[in-house]
Amino acid sequence: MLAETNINIDAIVDAVLKELKEQLFILTEASGRHVHLSREDINTLFGYDYQLTPVKDLSQPGQFACEERVTITGPKNAIHNVVVLGPERSKSQVEVSLTDALTLGIKVPVRLSGDIKGTPGIKITNPKNGVTIEAKEGLIVAKRHIHMTPEDAKRFHVSNGESVKVKVFGERPLILEDVDIRVDKNFSTAMHIDYDEANACGLTKGSKGLIIA
Amino acid sequence: MLAETNINIDAIVDAVLKELKEQLFILTEASGRHVHLSREDINTLFGYDYQLTPVKDLSQPGQFACEERVTITGPKNAIHNVVVLGPERSKSQVEVSLTDALTLGIKVPVRLSGDIKGTPGIKITNPKNGVTIEAKEGLIVAKRHIHMTPEDAKRFHVSNGESVKVKVFGERPLILEDVDIRVDKNFSTAMHIDYDEANACGLTKGSKGLIIA
Repeated sequence: MLAETNINIDAIVDAVLKELKEQLFILTEASGRHVHLSREDINTLFGYDYQLTPVKDLSQPGQFACEERVTITGPKNAIHNVVVLGPERSKSQVEVSLTDALTLGIKVPVRLSGDIKGTPGIKITNPKNGVTIEAKEGLIVAKRHIHMTPEDAKRFHVSNGESVKVKVFGERPLILEDVDIRVDKNFSTAMHIDYDEANACGLTKGSKGLIIA
Repeated sequence: MLAETNINIDAIVDAVLKELKEQLFILTEASGRHVHLSREDINTLFGYDYQLTPVKDLSQPGQFACEERVTITGPKNAIHNVVVLGPERSKSQVEVSLTDALTLGIKVPVRLSGDIKGTPGIKITNPKNGVTIEAKEGLIVAKRHIHMTPEDAKRFHVSNGESVKVKVFGERPLILEDVDIRVDKNFSTAMHIDYDEANACGLTKGSKGLIIA
């Protein structure tokens, strides 16, 4: 039997709720427009053997935002100051929102990152030297997805390639359907949506998602 | 007993499904940024007793897009070519998306149209004569809502002021929560969302919504 003590029940409940929330809710991040570049395209745009300059780590381990910025140009308009993400990839890929697609004047399909076969091309320019490449394909609107560790996938009872519904707790609550699960031991668990989706949710820093089906 | 005839069952099923769809699904429209002006502000911007020039009827009876365009200016950027909607209202109101709010550099609250007390102000300029007014308030991101006829409200078992969830069948399916029902005999039944929300849904012309709760 416990001696009489002043147990603060409220504090315990708060701690339990906080831990439950940590375990149940998924960090939700808005991805801005960005470019991934292949070695070949880096050579052309920035010079042979040029190394990208990391300035900020992203939530996914090993991924980083670079100092380098490019201009992407469609038939209607150009969008300037588009961040390059590293490390370099086997194929260049440009990710924009549907709002950006309208600005560029290109019909851009919604695809999972990496799935670029048959997608539209786009002009990419290094504004510092004026060099432009014409990517033959690789322009996509990123399909919403959750990066997940194998441990979290087990915990949430989901597997790689599965689609789930996620309720997002922003100022404008909604449920995103058809959110792809991507499981990899090198991932950190986080849902990635674009700025159109983030604005539709009224997402703010720290907004979380909950898998509901 | 029917004489033997060639009844096309498929055509009948199609007709039934089409009618059911008409009855169950709600027209979903994306509202672009726009401005409603008071008589006083029209007098200042366009001249005393100036009459707005209707160019296109909107889905809501009596509402129309005008030939007149204005520039709205925030601390960060201006947005040009913003359509004026008529008829004139008792108070001026500027409706933008959260994407636009970032462009303007103003934190804009999500409000139902008409609920502008305490909202930020904005500069509105007639680009043809350079006249600018500084609206003291009235800048909002429109809260998603369904205009509904009293007959449809009865049919859908909802009432004015109620919130519902709506599944939107676009390229990127999602469920919008917290959609306000507005019932008025002068309305035509249609859901209005902004371009951020429309892009998050992958909305295309003719996309429909279904009230699910």
